[in-house]
Amino acid sequence: MGSGKKEQEKNSQKYFYKMELKTKVGLLQLKIHKNKDLNIKKAVNKIRYAAKKGAKIVCTSELFLFEYFCKTENHSNFKYAEKIPGAITNLFCKLTKELNIILIISLFEKKIAGQYYNTCIIINDKGKIISKYRKMHIPDDPGYYEKFYFTPGDLGFKNTKTRYGEIGTLICWDQWFPEAARLTALKGSEIIFFPTAIGWHPKEKKKYGKTQLDSWITIQKSHAIANGIFVVAVNRVGYEKKGNRKIEFWGHSLVIDPNGKIIAKLKSKEEGVLVCDIDFKKVDSARQHWPFLRDRRIDAYKSLIRNSKND
Amino acid sequence: MGSGKKEQEKNSQKYFYKMELKTKVGLLQLKIHKNKDLNIKKAVNKIRYAAKKGAKIVCTSELFLFEYFCKTENHSNFKYAEKIPGAITNLFCKLTKELNIILIISLFEKKIAGQYYNTCIIINDKGKIISKYRKMHIPDDPGYYEKFYFTPGDLGFKNTKTRYGEIGTLICWDQWFPEAARLTALKGSEIIFFPTAIGWHPKEKKKYGKTQLDSWITIQKSHAIANGIFVVAVNRVGYEKKGNRKIEFWGHSLVIDPNGKIIAKLKSKEEGVLVCDIDFKKVDSARQHWPFLRDRRIDAYKSLIRNSKND
Repeated sequence: MGSGKKEQEKNSQKYFYKMELKTKVGLLQLKIHKNKDLNIKKAVNKIRYAAKKGAKIVCTSELFLFEYFCKTENHSNFKYAEKIPGAITNLFCKLTKELNIILIISLFEKKIAGQYYNTCIIINDKGKIISKYRKMHIPDDPGYYEKFYFTPGDLGFKNTKTRYGEIGTLICWDQWFPEAARLTALKGSEIIFFPTAIGWHPKEKKKYGKTQLDSWITIQKSHAIANGIFVVAVNRVGYEKKGNRKIEFWGHSLVIDPNGKIIAKLKSKEEGVLVCDIDFKKVDSARQHWPFLRDRRIDAYKSLIRNSKND
Repeated sequence: MGSGKKEQEKNSQKYFYKMELKTKVGLLQLKIHKNKDLNIKKAVNKIRYAAKKGAKIVCTSELFLFEYFCKTENHSNFKYAEKIPGAITNLFCKLTKELNIILIISLFEKKIAGQYYNTCIIINDKGKIISKYRKMHIPDDPGYYEKFYFTPGDLGFKNTKTRYGEIGTLICWDQWFPEAARLTALKGSEIIFFPTAIGWHPKEKKKYGKTQLDSWITIQKSHAIANGIFVVAVNRVGYEKKGNRKIEFWGHSLVIDPNGKIIAKLKSKEEGVLVCDIDFKKVDSARQHWPFLRDRRIDAYKSLIRNSKND
């Protein structure tokens, strides 16, 4: 039969696809130092470690190359921005090819003079950049002056097919917007990664710290539940100070399954690499048992593209 | 000055508005009986009790006049549907006028032959029906055969101004859709009431019960957080059986503040009336400190009115 080889290929693809319904993710929860080269070196080491532990998709925290410079508004910080592709991405592309993993890294991107983005990219196991996402929702809060630095994302919401799953990427503040998770899920993602940089103002921690952290965990669980999707948040740890601005980054990197259960997490002060098994069959199962995507009223959601009271 | 009286009126209105930034809500978590008259009598008594305790906005659970008939698909159940306005609403309109309260009740509505809705209405303190909301998201799950009975709501999402606050109403399954809470908040609501009928299948309870309840609580907290809004869910309690279908309604009626904190709740087996203070200043404060409504990307949400992967 002439089609024997084709059929064999088809079958092996099927088997291949089946095999990849399970994967392992790796989360890098690190303290970030003033020295960029040290941050790179540390990240590379930890990525190697995660790969050794079997992680196939590894993700850094937000803007992991620098102390969180948005604590103040300072024009000299623009010099930290990178071109994509550029020297930094070349380095990590080489690494993923060597380790045979997918890597999600978060960078301060210079697009052109005067347009800077809070960007994350996905590099595949062949060392190729296969996705770029620019943070869509930009915060501006005392100590988080991101609207000064970043143009709001202009690439929309993203899903990226990889051999280890369909991956969505969102960044930090996006976490608080159900729209972002929903749109990413609707594009086909079965797991969303959130590189993150969030912490306590030391002055507020005693009074509001617990509520703030609880809210942060709750909102991410809710995306998992509402969309029947895995949610991964990767935060930094450590105490950073610039002038009067101090932030204690609260760690708590975590993996949530499509039923809203935390299946792996780190603590608030712990540097570490978290490697966690992902079984994508749970996405199908969650969405069959909680069929919310079936029942959306797309005929009645028009006003979601308005601000308020406009209809 | 000719404008003296007008000015006085303006000032008194201002004062009046200020006064009403605080209110009290009352939640009726009851076991529902086979006998409709008994359910009415009990509800009336409990509404009187809530009003006596100072509640100004009282809310029943979903379809509180009947055992949850959607456990099975049975044409004879259509006879339970009411006209709105009708005998039942007349009775409750009289009551709110007497007690000087706002009342939210959930009814099985017959609009015309062949069109039935899962509806909730708001009756003001003058005994007038001031809002009608028809459940927009209709579930269909073993034991919750609502698609058999109810046409999906045709009135859109609702906000209703009352002297005790701007009130949104959604119903049970709507709880799982961030779109519903968002649209209601964007219309101006500062508190959302969810009449609810949700419970465990006794066979599943041991294995999945805790996760199911946790998900239900989490998703409601998330609406409060994402929208800076009070969330009130009113569920029934008790074990109901029809043929092979058994449901243990899980109670847990609760009030969540705009920071996502549960500020009052009942237990899973406890009939009761929960009366809880509401301070609407918390809405402003939550939205100033967590300014998510400021940062929505309405230019990039178009695909929310699609199902998936269509752009």
